[in-house]
This record gives sequence, C-alpha cells and structure tokens, in this order.
Amino acid sequence: MAYEREAAILEVTSVVLGAARDFLCREGFVELLPVMLAPVTDPLRHTTDRAILEAYGTSWHLTRSMIFHKQAAVRVCRRIFSFSPNVRLEPAEWGKTGRHLFEFVQLDLELRDATRQEVMALGERLFLYVMEAVRARCKGELELLGRRLPSFQAPFPKVTYQQAKERYGEDFEQKLSQEAEAPVWVVDFPIEVREFYDREDPTRPGILLDMDLVYPEGYGEALSGGEREHEPGRILARIERQGLDPKAYRPLLSLAEEGLPPSAGFGIGIERWVRYLCGLAHVREVRLFPRVPGEPSLL
Amino acid sequence: MAYEREAAILEVTSVVLGAARDFLCREGFVELLPVMLAPVTDPLRHTTDRAILEAYGTSWHLTRSMIFHKQAAVRVCRRIFSFSPNVRLEPAEWGKTGRHLFEFVQLDLELRDATRQEVMALGERLFLYVMEAVRARCKGELELLGRRLPSFQAPFPKVTYQQAKERYGEDFEQKLSQEAEAPVWVVDFPIEVREFYDREDPTRPGILLDMDLVYPEGYGEALSGGEREHEPGRILARIERQGLDPKAYRPLLSLAEEGLPPSAGFGIGIERWVRYLCGLAHVREVRLFPRVPGEPSLL
Repeated sequence: MAYEREAAILEVTSVVLGAARDFLCREGFVELLPVMLAPVTDPLRHTTDRAILEAYGTSWHLTRSMIFHKQAAVRVCRRIFSFSPNVRLEPAEWGKTGRHLFEFVQLDLELRDATRQEVMALGERLFLYVMEAVRARCKGELELLGRRLPSFQAPFPKVTYQQAKERYGEDFEQKLSQEAEAPVWVVDFPIEVREFYDREDPTRPGILLDMDLVYPEGYGEALSGGEREHEPGRILARIERQGLDPKAYRPLLSLAEEGLPPSAGFGIGIERWVRYLCGLAHVREVRLFPRVPGEPSLL
Repeated sequence: MAYEREAAILEVTSVVLGAARDFLCREGFVELLPVMLAPVTDPLRHTTDRAILEAYGTSWHLTRSMIFHKQAAVRVCRRIFSFSPNVRLEPAEWGKTGRHLFEFVQLDLELRDATRQEVMALGERLFLYVMEAVRARCKGELELLGRRLPSFQAPFPKVTYQQAKERYGEDFEQKLSQEAEAPVWVVDFPIEVREFYDREDPTRPGILLDMDLVYPEGYGEALSGGEREHEPGRILARIERQGLDPKAYRPLLSLAEEGLPPSAGFGIGIERWVRYLCGLAHVREVRLFPRVPGEPSLL
C-alpha cells in the first residue's frame, strides 16, 4: 500500500485527538472553538517574528497561544479546552531541531480556581489515558512504525528548575529528556525566564507556580503551563517587569479590572505528542504538508 | 448565575463538536489537524479580500477552506475530516447579515471514490445524529435559550438550482430557507456560479455534481459540497474558465499530475450550525469574542 507510513501516523493523530477530547469531556471540560486572529496574543519570551494581518482598519495577531482567551473563557465555563492552531515564526535554523514547526496545533486547556498541583495531576491522567488509547487502538500502526511504547505510572518524577540547571546546565531540557526514563516535571521556573502571565509564588518572590512536562528518550518538552496572574495590579507589574508595553495588553488589563478568576492550565503540542508516541525522528513527519521554519511547502 | 446564556451556547457548541467527531470516527473517518497557512487556498467565487502573511521569503494564504488539502489527503486515508478555522475577509456590510464572521470554524470532510449521492446521505445522517445528541444532552441549555428543536427524517427534500431560481428568483437562498419546513438540498448549480473544483457532470455540460444544504426557519446555508474535479486537464480547463491564473494553482495541478483520486465532500460551518440549533438571532452569539466583518474586538 502506498502512503502506509503516512496513514499510520495520521491514524495515531486522530486517536490522540479523539481520546484527549473524550477524557476532557468526562472530566467536565467544554470544548471551545479556536481563535486565530486577535488584537493581542501571547508575547512569548523566546524570539519569534510577529505574524500580523491588517483588516477592517485594525491589526490582528495570529495566535501564538490562546492564553488570554482561556483566562477570559473560564469566567463563563469552569473548565475549557481548545485544539488551537498556533503560528510562531521561529528562526529558520530551528527547522533542524526536529521539534519545531511554525504552524502547529496545541491542546490548550484552563481550569478556574485550580492549583498547579491539580493541573499537574490532570496532565498525568490525560497523558496516560491517551497513551493507553493509542496502545489499544493503534497496534498495527505502532508495529508498522517500529514503535514500542513503554508504560508509566503517575505521579511522574519532579525536579525544580534550579535542580535541573545544577545537574545539566542552563539548557537542560534536552539532556534531561535524554536521561529521563519516564516523563518528568520541571517546576518553579524563575520569573526572568517565563512570560508575565505565569503566577509568582506569593511565598517565594521571583519563583513561579508553573511547570513543564518533558518527554523521555530525548523528545524534549511535552507541555507547559502553570497558575496564572489574574489581578490587574499584579498583571501590570509583571508586564512592566518583562519590559513590555502595557498599552499593548490593554484588553487583558480591562478584563482583569472587570474581574478574572484565578485559574491554572497548560498547553500540549499535538504534533510533538504524536512524534513521541510514534517515535519519529522529526515532528515534520506528523503533517502531510509540514510548516518547517525556513522551508517552502508544495501545498 | 452570570454568563448563563453564554455558557449554554458554549456547551451546545462543545456537544456539536464531540457528537460530530464521534459520528465520523464510527463511519471510518480520520481526523486531520487543520491547516492555517498555505501557498494556495480556496479562490471562492464571491468577493473577499485576500489574507496573506509573508514569511521565510514566501507568501502564505490564510485558509479559506481546506479543499485542496482534503483532495491531497484522501490519497492517504479514504475518509478524512478536520475542524478547520477559516479566515474570509468579507465586506464590512456583511456584518449585519446575521450569518457572517470573518473567522469561523468549518467541519470540512472528504471521501475518496464517493459520489454526490453518498455524501448527501452521509450529510443527512451527520445532521440528524448531531441534532439528536444536542436534544438529548442539552435539555437545560435549549430550555434556557427558549429553543424547541423540530424533528426531521432523512431523506431531506431536494430542489435543483434551476427550480429554486424559478420559484424565488436569483437570490433564492434566504426565501427558500424561510419557507422550508425541513432542511432542503439545492443541487445542480450551474458552472458559472461555483468554484472550479466542483465536478462538472459529464452527461450534462455546464451543470455541476454539487449541492448545498439550506436550514429551515430562515437560517440560510448549512453546508456546501460536491464531487471534485481530479484530472489535471479538467482542473486546468476549469481554472481557465473561471478566469483564474493557472500559475497560482500550480501546486494543485502538480498533485493532480501525480494522481488525485476521485472524491466528494462538503464543509459545514460550526457557528451557523450552533446558531440554528440554539435559535440565535446572529451567529456572533456563538463566540465569546466574535470576528464580525467591519468590527473591532476587545480580545
């Protein structure tokens, strides 16, 4: 059969999407339609070009993450998620990392009144549920791809940013991922390496109530999230501390002045997840027409 | 409770997404990740501004529909669907129609080797399945919204474009929708009112093997689709006949030269579907932050 390998990867992707949705709906989540264009989007710490469309006399940013829309949506529904296409114009040389696409889909979710601990536990259950769904429903696909999925149990091991840095140096993610035998949490990022919306621990200034989950076998970051700043004064202070222009974040500040609830959540990239589950060399293989930084595409 | 109405509409939306996905997966479909940026997108007959992003030395069109990606994907999987965000920069005055958003999500699906008749039957089953799911799982939401859902049976009534035009004049969609007591198919559009990718009936030159489904109660178009042109010579002739530049569609022509299978499919707009199911005055109510032509948005 032609396209055997491509078909297997698409089937696994479809099972991941379906299983994640089933799991979240059973946990009381509501699926939101994704947002592609908005007056403001995630600033992101690492350098990416801005992707902007001019229309109807206004500038619309292509979504880099739905963080602010998630914070607004949990006013209406307690638990929400979206399969959200993100556009991040990363440097062309990142096309070679095996982990970067400039267009990808993120399962982005948020919980009103939740703590980091609750969200981490949810993340573990989601991860294991989807893994078991793929194991059970994609036997032939995994065999064709030569992939043997290991088994894990919650809770996953946990290290602090500080511990990871002491053990592996500043750029620890890759080494940590290569040595890990199970998915591993990294918690307590310092304020200067993350975005302003991750909540600072009130009892430990400069340390955030956030986390990443890192895949084993060198597949790098799985998900990233945390508790959120939701009080207008705190958000403003953090925007200024990150060196950003508060005027650009006026929409978020207005919502916070009306009242945003405390919340926590995370985003997990679908293509990287499928790459890990299928054991693929490059995330590009997950897409029929991948958007690799620096590369054109036939279609 | 604050946001009671908004929460009810979001819940119905989530049920529509989940039920549609369940139905399609049981019918053997594979869910594809949506495409947001591409070298080429749906030309669309009606006037819309082009939405283009420049990146990595190339022009990327924001998706107006995944038609060409669907045709390419059915080479790999027999039946595919995607919840696909579309950006269509419609004229500002269309903001008042009640039916237009410049960013919306389309459930876009395609079946290899299928006829129009098969796809219409699938569309009816999908429509009824999702309607029954909403009726069963959203009782409280429908009551809160004051919506009583009628009951329908397949097959839905069918008129040709020519019959509809004779009865209601050139712009028949709205009148047909207002008078209809059930969803109604319009079939056999003439070649000059539709896009080049809808297949011309080999036995009736100038008539297409395509269809629209129109909601009752004045809610207008539900879905639009048809069989596809898949032979390179036919595609080229149709591109030229529509007055488009074949160079712009080189990617599609290259794929067709490699070999595209015959296929048929349709797209159904999620926000309009939810508007109909909830009985809303304007499609804007389906979104927390709607993208209405000509209007700015807070977030």
